[in-house]
This record gives sequence, structure tokens and C-alpha cells, in this order.
Amino acid sequence: MNFTIDREVLLDKLTIISHGLSTKSPMKIMEGIKIDVTDNDLFLTSSNSDISIQILVKDSSLVIEETGKTVVPGKTFIELIKAFDSRKISFFLIEDKILMIKADRKEYRINVMDPNDYPSIKFLNLLNPFSINCHELKRAIEETVFACANNTKNPMLLGVNLKNNANRLIFTATNSYRLSLKTLDVETYDPFELTIPAKSLNEFASILESYDESLPIELYFDKNKLLAKFNDILFQTRLLDGNFPDTSNVCPKEKDTKVIVRFNKDELQTALNRIAILSPVDTAKDKEITFNAVVLKIDQNYEVELSSANIQGAGKEIILPVDIKAVSPLVIGFSSKYLLDALKVLPGNEIEIMFIDGSKQFVLKSVSDNTLTEIILPFRLDN
Amino acid sequence: MNFTIDREVLLDKLTIISHGLSTKSPMKIMEGIKIDVTDNDLFLTSSNSDISIQILVKDSSLVIEETGKTVVPGKTFIELIKAFDSRKISFFLIEDKILMIKADRKEYRINVMDPNDYPSIKFLNLLNPFSINCHELKRAIEETVFACANNTKNPMLLGVNLKNNANRLIFTATNSYRLSLKTLDVETYDPFELTIPAKSLNEFASILESYDESLPIELYFDKNKLLAKFNDILFQTRLLDGNFPDTSNVCPKEKDTKVIVRFNKDELQTALNRIAILSPVDTAKDKEITFNAVVLKIDQNYEVELSSANIQGAGKEIILPVDIKAVSPLVIGFSSKYLLDALKVLPGNEIEIMFIDGSKQFVLKSVSDNTLTEIILPFRLDN
Repeated sequence: MNFTIDREVLLDKLTIISHGLSTKSPMKIMEGIKIDVTDNDLFLTSSNSDISIQILVKDSSLVIEETGKTVVPGKTFIELIKAFDSRKISFFLIEDKILMIKADRKEYRINVMDPNDYPSIKFLNLLNPFSINCHELKRAIEETVFACANNTKNPMLLGVNLKNNANRLIFTATNSYRLSLKTLDVETYDPFELTIPAKSLNEFASILESYDESLPIELYFDKNKLLAKFNDILFQTRLLDGNFPDTSNVCPKEKDTKVIVRFNKDELQTALNRIAILSPVDTAKDKEITFNAVVLKIDQNYEVELSSANIQGAGKEIILPVDIKAVSPLVIGFSSKYLLDALKVLPGNEIEIMFIDGSKQFVLKSVSDNTLTEIILPFRLDN
Repeated sequence: MNFTIDREVLLDKLTIISHGLSTKSPMKIMEGIKIDVTDNDLFLTSSNSDISIQILVKDSSLVIEETGKTVVPGKTFIELIKAFDSRKISFFLIEDKILMIKADRKEYRINVMDPNDYPSIKFLNLLNPFSINCHELKRAIEETVFACANNTKNPMLLGVNLKNNANRLIFTATNSYRLSLKTLDVETYDPFELTIPAKSLNEFASILESYDESLPIELYFDKNKLLAKFNDILFQTRLLDGNFPDTSNVCPKEKDTKVIVRFNKDELQTALNRIAILSPVDTAKDKEITFNAVVLKIDQNYEVELSSANIQGAGKEIILPVDIKAVSPLVIGFSSKYLLDALKVLPGNEIEIMFIDGSKQFVLKSVSDNTLTEIILPFRLDN
């Protein structure tokens, strides 16, 4: 193996590849990047228990003198290429044992691993793609993935559920105390349902961060895997195996809504951040739902009050809503963290919250965008 | 107690006060801020085992309705004032038990502590000040404090030594493997010697960060304490009790110097950061001195080579010095971290390194500023 390439081009690809690297794997070779140089192409591959990434590096700066393959220790290799300040870098594989990296007056030798020990990774066949816009996909991931569970009581809740029906792709994530629901209009495709691990989606979203937003992404899947293809990148993740819970009854019916309050999003966020300072961090049996518990009260005069109390003191604030429609007073307790998480992803300056009563889940939507629905379960107030 | 003040003014003072707060103290009250409202003045005090801070808050926005004193939980109080977005905030002490904080439509109540339980803090008398420029003091701290020891084999090395003689104030810090020496021209004052805990100096430097650089600072001290006064702030720290080691023989004599190399600082930093990637993090018996060990070689042709090797591989780089004077070849091993730390504080674009031989400490200076001397001990090369 012997090739030369522009440092920036290589580093750009390595940054993507790093998202697929194993860390602290019992198999040392999984912490490595497989480099595969054929007559005309350079392939980079990384893989861990969730994700496999393969990139075909095509660039006018790539000059291949000799083909070959090897596996380099991933973290160190990326760290080195990052630290180089030369424009071009050359690589020479010496007796399949050492990769020599040369540029200007620098010469580094890295001990490499045997590419035959690297597991062969089966990427899905590129047949019958489901096409989706990069920007929309990235946004849908960010708007839902935070709502996934982070413990494994129900392993299916560790992922975001994607359900396609006719021209609608629905993203659902829940930890059973809150739920995030996003609807995307997509091209017609056969119905399917997949649940993708949150961890994989976070890595994927962060790869897409540096990508052209208007790029179309092709998705391929079978029962166990999802493969995303864009540019010359293959990103494959395992899928969660099982049935995602039916959440079709979670969203309350509009006719049951008793109180609708419209808030300026920034004002509500600022007040919640402040009131949360005096909220109990972890009180009751179920700490998930009462984390940073606060209470919202709406009285018969439509005055909206946010309050909290903990061992250090108590706070209350009157919030002036943009608009309010209430047929009955309301007292409801909930995790301010959940509400803040929801506000963070809801687009626009104004949001609307729809309540049934103090014991039922409530719904948040942006006033300017109805593709995203946030639902939060309150906790029981003892009084 | 009942007073009103501009939020920004108060927050500015609280940010300084926070540097003196105890964290996780067995005495809960030491995690508090003492608030003392007299007829015309507001005093804030914080204190921990090293530092005590007292601020006299004078501001045209301060309106005192009623005097009084109390102790508020420091972290929560600061967090709350930070989270407020009102211009003015009012404070009312209710039955010595609760501090009510009011602004606009917000009302917070914090449980307070008994000010009689707060230890009385003796600040030094403001007699016979030693005056020093804020900017110069801050810089001298930053240029030396990093070189202190961080373990307690010799507790005196946990501080920076200040020695005044005639018109010269000398700052010395060492962990016995490296030494940083700074000389400041000061006004005539009686000779003195103090050793100030690095921890206190770091807090002090970070308080000075937001201060007017041209401000004069008055220092007062006795055997046990140092008090700095600037604006309406008193910052007092304990001193280290004992004799700081004599370091007058550490700096090699100029006549013994065999090799002088002048480097572009940026180039040397970049090369060191890169070569350190393949350096052993912790090899020999004495891990302090061999941390990120690298080797510098100068051969008879004046070629300067930096190299490193660890279990993952090896690197070498030829560095082009700006200038070199050598009467003999040199091979020397040292911690790249120590060299990078020294380069970080040495001012200017070019630095000069003076070597005796591979076994003796070497000296770094900025070409443009001779007030700072950095000395590093090499480790023994086995070959």
C-alpha cells in the first residue's frame, strides 16, 4: 500500500468514520479503521456493535502508487492526521506491520493490525431505495430522539420508531412519561415499520451536521438493519428487534381539551429555568417523572402561576400568556425538564399547550408548525 | 433587612464572592454568603479554609429600607439571581428565617441560616500597603502558578513563593522537575518573603480577569495571611507555613551553556503536540518527569530532530530553528507537557532554549522579554 492524499480531504472522511469506531472493545481490532486501497479507490471502514460505516474516498488529490489493505488504531491515527499541518500526506505500508506516514520533514510509523482479522461487514444491497431529504431527516431525528428512554426496562423504548404509510412517515419516541411525535410528508413507498437505536441516530445526526442540507439520502432496510447512503458514504445500523408499543391512544382527543394556553416560548423557558432552581430534584418513588417537579396553576381569573418548592425554599411566578381559553381552573404538576426538552425542539416563537385536567397527559405544539407533537404525563399532586 | 438593588450590580459582586465559597463543607453555613446591611452599606462575605472575601457594595441603585444580616445558601442564591431577568430585585428578611426575593411578577423564598453561627473573619489591618499593578500581578501569577506541585510530598511546593528585595519582586514556583521564575520591578518596600497557595492564586487571578487592568492593588500581610485590597474588595488568603526551598542554584550559569537554539514558538508547539501523540504517557518509575516523554537531538550538522516512541508506533520530525549555536551535539529527553506548559506562558513569537548537556536542566526564555525564566529537568535516557 502506497498512496498520497490531501490532509483535509482525508480528515473530513475520518471524522465521519470515527462515529463508527468501537471504544474499549474486547476485540482490539474493532478500535481500528480498515483502510483498503484498490487500483482506483480508497475505502475506509469502521464498525461497532451498533453501527458500521464505509466511505469510498474519491478525490482528485488521491494518488495511488500501490494497492493493499491494513487496519490502523483508529483514535491515534485520527489524532495524528488532525495534528499534521502539511497539505499532502503520504502513506506506505511496510511489510504489513507498519504504516509509515510522511509529510514534509515529518515521519511517523504506526503499528498496524492484520486486515484478515477484521470481521467482514455485510452492507445491505442497494435495491429499492426509500428517498428522504437530508435536512428533514436530520430535523426529525433531533425533534424525537431526546424523548427515548435511557434505561432498559423496555428495550424497544431505547429507539425511535419509524412508521411509513402511504405518503407519511411518522417518527415516535417515548420513555412512557413523555412522547415526541413527528410527521413527515414523503414520496410514496410500501408501508414499513422500523425502530432505530437512539444511539445510532445521534451518531447519524452528528454526521449529517456537516453535510449539504439539500442532499437526498437513500435508505435501505431489512428486518435487522437500516442502511443510509449519501454521497459515497454507507451508514448502517442494527434495528431494535421487537414490537414498539402502540401509542395511538396517547394523544388526547381535541374534544376533551379543557384549557388551551398560548405562551411566548422564550418567556416560558426563562421562567421554567428559574423556577426549576427550587424544585425537588428527585422526590417520589418514580424519580423519572418528578425530576425537577414544578406546578402550574390556572385560576378562575385566568391567572397563570408557575411554582416550585424544595428543602431550600419556594418560588412562584405569574406568567402572562399570549392567549388563554379555559373552561375550568387547572392545577397540574410535571417535570420542568420534560417541558424544557419539548420547548427546545418545538419551532417558532409561540407554543400552545392543551390540557384536559391535572391528571391527564398534556400536549404541546408550535403555533407555526403542526408536524411535531410533544406529550407529557403529569405526576400526581398530593393534596 | 429590606433592600433593593440592580440585578447586574449584585450579580457582578456575587460572581467574585463565589470564589470564596466552601463546597461540601461539613459546616453547612460555610457554603453560605453572609449578607450584612447597615444604614448605608451592603457587605457580602464568603469564606473557606483557604480564602475569605468581603465586598462592600456601593451603588447608586442600592436603596436600603431596613438594616439586618443573614446567611443565604451560596450556590442556590447565585443561581437564582443569575436566572432573574428583571432590572431591579428587592430582598426582605422575614423573621430571620426566610429571605424573600421579589421582582416583577416573581417571588422566591429562601430558607436562610443564623448569621450568629457564621464565624467572625479577621481581615488584616490596612496598614503599610505594598502596591502593585493589577495587570502585572495577574500576569506574574499566570506565568508561574502552573509550575507548582500538585501533590503534597513537599507542601511548600503547593504554592508560589514571593520574595521582595529592594525594587524587585521575584515569583518562584516549582514541582522540583520544572521551575518558573518571574521578576517584577516594584516600588521600594521592606524585604519580605511569602508563599501563597496555588489554589488561592488561581481564584485570585480569575477574579482579576474581569477587572480594570490598570488598577493598583494593595497587598497587606503578616506571617500567616495575605490580604489584597482593590476597589471595595478584600481578598484574603492563608499563607503556606514553612521555608520555601532555596532555588538560587537551579538556573545554570551562562558560561556552562553548550547549545543555544532559537525557535519559532508556534512551530515548536505544533511539532510537540504532534510528537506527543506517540509518546509514552507514563513509563518509568518517576511518572511526573517522563509524562509524554520526547527526545530532542541536535547532531554535528546542527540538524534538530524531535522524536518519540510508544507501544503504538514512533515519530520523528526535523525542526528548522530560527538560529542555533552549538559547540557539541546533544541528545536530551524531557516531558513534552512541561515544555508545552512553558511555551504557553512565554511571551512573544520566538523563544530561546539553552542547554548544557543531556543530563542537566535547560532554560527557556522569550527573545523579546527577559522577565520570565522557565527551567526544565530532563530525564535519563537509557542507551
